[in-house]
Amino acid sequence: MAQFSVPCSVYRGGTSRGLFFHKKDLPQDVPTRNRIFLEGIDCYNASQVNGLGGATSSTSKVCVVSPSTREGADVDWTFYQLGVAEAVIDEKGTCGNLMAGVGAFTVDEGLVEVDPAADKKDVFVYNTNIKKILHMEIPVVNGRAKVSGDYLMPGVVTPGAMFRVSIVNPGGEMTGQLLPLGERYKVTTDKATYEVTFSDLINPFIFVAAQAAGLTGTETSGAVAANQEVLDELNFIRDKIAVIAGMAKDEQDARQNKPNVPKIAMIAPAQDYVTICGEQIKKEDVDILIKVISLGKLHRTSPASGLYNLAAETFIQGTIPHQIAGIQQGAGESAVRIGHPEGIVEVCVTLAADGSSIKKVGMKRTARRIMKGELFIPVT
Amino acid sequence: MAQFSVPCSVYRGGTSRGLFFHKKDLPQDVPTRNRIFLEGIDCYNASQVNGLGGATSSTSKVCVVSPSTREGADVDWTFYQLGVAEAVIDEKGTCGNLMAGVGAFTVDEGLVEVDPAADKKDVFVYNTNIKKILHMEIPVVNGRAKVSGDYLMPGVVTPGAMFRVSIVNPGGEMTGQLLPLGERYKVTTDKATYEVTFSDLINPFIFVAAQAAGLTGTETSGAVAANQEVLDELNFIRDKIAVIAGMAKDEQDARQNKPNVPKIAMIAPAQDYVTICGEQIKKEDVDILIKVISLGKLHRTSPASGLYNLAAETFIQGTIPHQIAGIQQGAGESAVRIGHPEGIVEVCVTLAADGSSIKKVGMKRTARRIMKGELFIPVT
Repeated sequence: MAQFSVPCSVYRGGTSRGLFFHKKDLPQDVPTRNRIFLEGIDCYNASQVNGLGGATSSTSKVCVVSPSTREGADVDWTFYQLGVAEAVIDEKGTCGNLMAGVGAFTVDEGLVEVDPAADKKDVFVYNTNIKKILHMEIPVVNGRAKVSGDYLMPGVVTPGAMFRVSIVNPGGEMTGQLLPLGERYKVTTDKATYEVTFSDLINPFIFVAAQAAGLTGTETSGAVAANQEVLDELNFIRDKIAVIAGMAKDEQDARQNKPNVPKIAMIAPAQDYVTICGEQIKKEDVDILIKVISLGKLHRTSPASGLYNLAAETFIQGTIPHQIAGIQQGAGESAVRIGHPEGIVEVCVTLAADGSSIKKVGMKRTARRIMKGELFIPVT
Repeated sequence: MAQFSVPCSVYRGGTSRGLFFHKKDLPQDVPTRNRIFLEGIDCYNASQVNGLGGATSSTSKVCVVSPSTREGADVDWTFYQLGVAEAVIDEKGTCGNLMAGVGAFTVDEGLVEVDPAADKKDVFVYNTNIKKILHMEIPVVNGRAKVSGDYLMPGVVTPGAMFRVSIVNPGGEMTGQLLPLGERYKVTTDKATYEVTFSDLINPFIFVAAQAAGLTGTETSGAVAANQEVLDELNFIRDKIAVIAGMAKDEQDARQNKPNVPKIAMIAPAQDYVTICGEQIKKEDVDILIKVISLGKLHRTSPASGLYNLAAETFIQGTIPHQIAGIQQGAGESAVRIGHPEGIVEVCVTLAADGSSIKKVGMKRTARRIMKGELFIPVT
């Protein structure tokens, strides 16, 4: 035969796009399965023109879904990050954007029963990557995920129906506790002593006040990226905390072998600032500002895990995020508006009735099925 | 309904990727058809993440194919270039890369009869954009376009089965003649008098010796792009020829209203040079070098039409390309190896038995069907 084919759908979720497969449609043989992923995206070419990728990490993604036997979950989902110009498949992390696509896929593919007259469906997904239950509130129409709507999600110019995706009972992913070093912890470098909050939700994050680093938090990305002295100091704090939290043997091990987690972020109170694209953000439209350092350098925006960690901590008394945001603690669901260098993201946080723990963190997204059919793979 | 859907296939042809439709599957209503194209690629977002585009012009393409009633053609094909971050659909030009995908689609979709035992199928396509017949030699296996093979096409790192795509009886597309100003024509600027060859094949091109512009032709792209004096002089020659060839009222009209055609290119004899990616090209592996100026600026590689025009002219005695390449004129098919800033492209030229005219120009490509199924379009 010329090529073999596998049933496949393409979905956008949030600002990501990926290939979606039913687990039952994939071969059990892992090398063949991996070749389907790699050829499907075309990880081999930087242009990804020989597959469905878009030559960016946001469009080099694969999701595999199957009915769940787990209590409280409708489906199991595994996320795979694929490489651009390298044949790499990584299933360590999750994807806050494609989560919304998984909700749509679960509904569209009939993996949950949907009342044809309903306008909303709650879907529960067990994400094998982070070993957490996700709760999705999916708008539906005639039993299928709704697409058209008027919610304009940052990062996509076309509005759509609003999905809400949440991680249930997050916290303690890597260390077993949401605040393994307590609400605040003091770190001393050659230059100063800093107070940090170390938060472990999805991926662990260290938060330090921008002011403690000598900044206002409204500096341009260019100015921060060029301030090697501040970056060095933050990287040094990060390495120290990695050791103290038991994530690295020593600082050299942290620097060399664990450069990706934990990450460190500077946070600052709500203030007017200008985005990279020149958009004027007003103080009253944000609750807190963030600048993330990832792999030693300033991040373009913030990873979803940084947003979830920060939003959750703004509700935990005694933490630095809580002090800086000045949000009143309360039970039930609240939204936190985080300003990053490219704009504002709204994160929803649901606290336990007594306010002592985080029951859910979530985001509003849009999603849609782009194509469904057979994906073709060259025979070798 | 949540979205409506249309049967669609995704093919790579050469270094391009596009959405392929049967004309019968598209609505006759042009606004709806256009929305299918625009949403399918997601021209609205620069990231094209809400459709199947790859955020580049090479992956923002649509092909529509239907059975032909025309003598000598199996199918009719219309090519559409779509915009990136703008809702634009342009059907003026053709695509030398996706041509190969059209050949594969014609075979895969059963639009021509293929002997299941055959290993090659000749397909004839009428391209409505340039009003020419294309001849495709498609490798087949079990009646479908063959994909796997060992031909490594420049621009794709994965080898494949070799397709040959040719334009039959090209020449005189815009002006009615292959050489509307003869083999050579003299143009005088404030600084000097230049000899040019004006060739009209697919899109009209002006060729001038790099040496006449004071260059060797092996300069880096950076050096040429920064040499405003040379660029100004070439743009001035281009505007003058556009007027002389009757394509613009005056030089201002050429500059302002017809910036895209004709294009102008500097050509030089075979020499060692280094590509943008640092690859060393050897003199003996090329027949002629090209640097194209498009819309006033240096082109990253060369449009396919520049390659076809140049290859054809190297066989026409008296032209500047013929003089520079020093290729012996002969009947039958010959290959010309053209060195551009990113590498080498081989163009096949077939001359009439008496050597007086161009019967075919063609290229070797690889192609494959990536996906087939239903493309989903949001309802408004």
